[in-house]
Amino acid sequence: LAGGAVPADGGVVIALERMARVRALEPGCWRIAVDAGLTTAHAQRIARENGLFLPPNPGAAEQSQLGGNLATNAAGPRAFKYGSIGGFVTGLEVAIPPGELLSIGGAASRDVAGCWLRLLPAPDTRATAVAFYPSTERLAAGVLGVLASGRVPAAVEYLDGGALSAVASTYPGDLPPAAAGAILVELDGSGREVAAAAEEIAEALGSSSLARPLTVTGPRSDRLLAWRESVSSAVAAQAGAKLSEDVSVPVEHLAQVIDAVIELGARHGLQACSWGHAGNGTIHASFLVSPESDEELTRAQQAAAELFSLTIDVGGSVSGEHGVGMLKRELLERQWPGPAVRLHRDIKSLFDPKNLMNPGKKLP
Amino acid sequence: LAGGAVPADGGVVIALERMARVRALEPGCWRIAVDAGLTTAHAQRIARENGLFLPPNPGAAEQSQLGGNLATNAAGPRAFKYGSIGGFVTGLEVAIPPGELLSIGGAASRDVAGCWLRLLPAPDTRATAVAFYPSTERLAAGVLGVLASGRVPAAVEYLDGGALSAVASTYPGDLPPAAAGAILVELDGSGREVAAAAEEIAEALGSSSLARPLTVTGPRSDRLLAWRESVSSAVAAQAGAKLSEDVSVPVEHLAQVIDAVIELGARHGLQACSWGHAGNGTIHASFLVSPESDEELTRAQQAAAELFSLTIDVGGSVSGEHGVGMLKRELLERQWPGPAVRLHRDIKSLFDPKNLMNPGKKLP
Repeated sequence: LAGGAVPADGGVVIALERMARVRALEPGCWRIAVDAGLTTAHAQRIARENGLFLPPNPGAAEQSQLGGNLATNAAGPRAFKYGSIGGFVTGLEVAIPPGELLSIGGAASRDVAGCWLRLLPAPDTRATAVAFYPSTERLAAGVLGVLASGRVPAAVEYLDGGALSAVASTYPGDLPPAAAGAILVELDGSGREVAAAAEEIAEALGSSSLARPLTVTGPRSDRLLAWRESVSSAVAAQAGAKLSEDVSVPVEHLAQVIDAVIELGARHGLQACSWGHAGNGTIHASFLVSPESDEELTRAQQAAAELFSLTIDVGGSVSGEHGVGMLKRELLERQWPGPAVRLHRDIKSLFDPKNLMNPGKKLP
Repeated sequence: LAGGAVPADGGVVIALERMARVRALEPGCWRIAVDAGLTTAHAQRIARENGLFLPPNPGAAEQSQLGGNLATNAAGPRAFKYGSIGGFVTGLEVAIPPGELLSIGGAASRDVAGCWLRLLPAPDTRATAVAFYPSTERLAAGVLGVLASGRVPAAVEYLDGGALSAVASTYPGDLPPAAAGAILVELDGSGREVAAAAEEIAEALGSSSLARPLTVTGPRSDRLLAWRESVSSAVAAQAGAKLSEDVSVPVEHLAQVIDAVIELGARHGLQACSWGHAGNGTIHASFLVSPESDEELTRAQQAAAELFSLTIDVGGSVSGEHGVGMLKRELLERQWPGPAVRLHRDIKSLFDPKNLMNPGKKLP
């Protein structure tokens, strides 16, 4: 393992960027075995070059590594249709303290140990439908309309009014002036399948949207998805920095929590906005702060704390998909019953009795 | 919990058949919350009546309960496309010794604790393609052809020659005289999608099949699947009883292991055959025995032991989807490295420190 080092708190930092081999690729059996340090983008490129497809993409694909994706069971937009990465893992090679290497599962040739991932055939066609809404309420109605359509899109994404205005100038088309939110729906499959689904999704989105939804394929679809991806950095650029939190709520509470993000920001004197994976109820809430102001950051943390309370109240989760780290470790005990937290801690200590791996990062 | 009882070995038997309520059904949000004792068939009927679909069906749907499906992460034919039941669970209410009730996850309204399952919209159309093969080798080529087609069927099932002859008289059509195996491929989706996929799947199956593959929809498709379901009891009826084992192998070893089942049976003087989920490499191997003969059962067990060895040798798993119970508990230590078995035992004892739950059923 490259780059092992002992930081001040006694934990071990493990850098895996030099463990980035493809150990085996068997396209005819829809599978690949890789090192844990291979980046998401690299694995996806290899799959694509072989007519295959690794659906989970948690974002930051050029930086994120498969080992990290697995450790956090990463999701991302296409989890709506395909689930998170755990469903694609068929074999694992893991090192546990004090230094045992063990191999579980496979679906593999017997002489190779490693992390085996199931792949899928690449869909022939992708299309993206986009629709704009005059209010959060009508946006949420659009999301429920998509669910009612009986189609299973690859992704159902949203931008609220603030997120939309942060990227308004780079929208590849004409934005309706009254737009206070947007939904993007990605469809994939065979050409005929996508064409049929696109009609029904446009109808579902259009029943509460400002203008007729637009559906595009090919490079125009890629441009729309890249535009959606640019939201996070565009929002951060507005005030110089942002505190972003990632919560997940039952989908029927989407409108309530999207509006609450803005209200919580206002109550603490901060601009706020959100975007995320609407179909899964995943909300990336951002409170904008100046990078020089510790006081603004404190207010943003107070707003985030109130957002976590609301999330728990509506039956949601304080960590939609970004994991529980130092920032949220105190919250686990509010969301989970005591025995569950205790079992979680005890299971970790079976794997890591000296608490060397990420000490204090999830459990206080 | 209804029917709790302490058997002679000190373990607790828990019967859940009276815990069979539907706690909540929210079709617009694609979800249902149920008691652990609800049968698979009941849950699937409720989903269907609401235009929805619970894909995992491990078989014996009228007897199997959702709690058992979850405990074993049950799979079944449609796991090929949809994965096993774990991917559909979003919330759990569990009782752990000494009597703590805890609730994890949800995607649920906050006042209901229980087991929440994600559902999917019901596909408009189902079709089943069937093709017959003169040899195991050509049957396995048909399976790899389906994988190479770039389509993702709901299920890819097979019957070897012995399994086929056990149900030959009830086949709803004309069986080619030289048939020594069959593949059934189930497709689901929109009408247009299924029609397009059916053409490509028929072409993939047909490149090594005896006659042109047949594709049927509607009631004829249901009849074909029911015929496939009848294999297990028809095989058992041939000699009066059978020892059935469930192994899973990398799909490229399918032909080798299907043929080995017959050879292992012959070596021990027993008729043998197999069928299963070819797309996942899951093989249900049966060794036929007379119900009166303990000696035949012993020989069947020897044949099964040799099948397990071969399975491990080719990188497969001794339990494809039926779990590890008393019959296979000694095998876990051959398939898993020592530290993995130790961690597994230690994790169980965190949940069940007095070893009351299924003592000795999986770990010796």
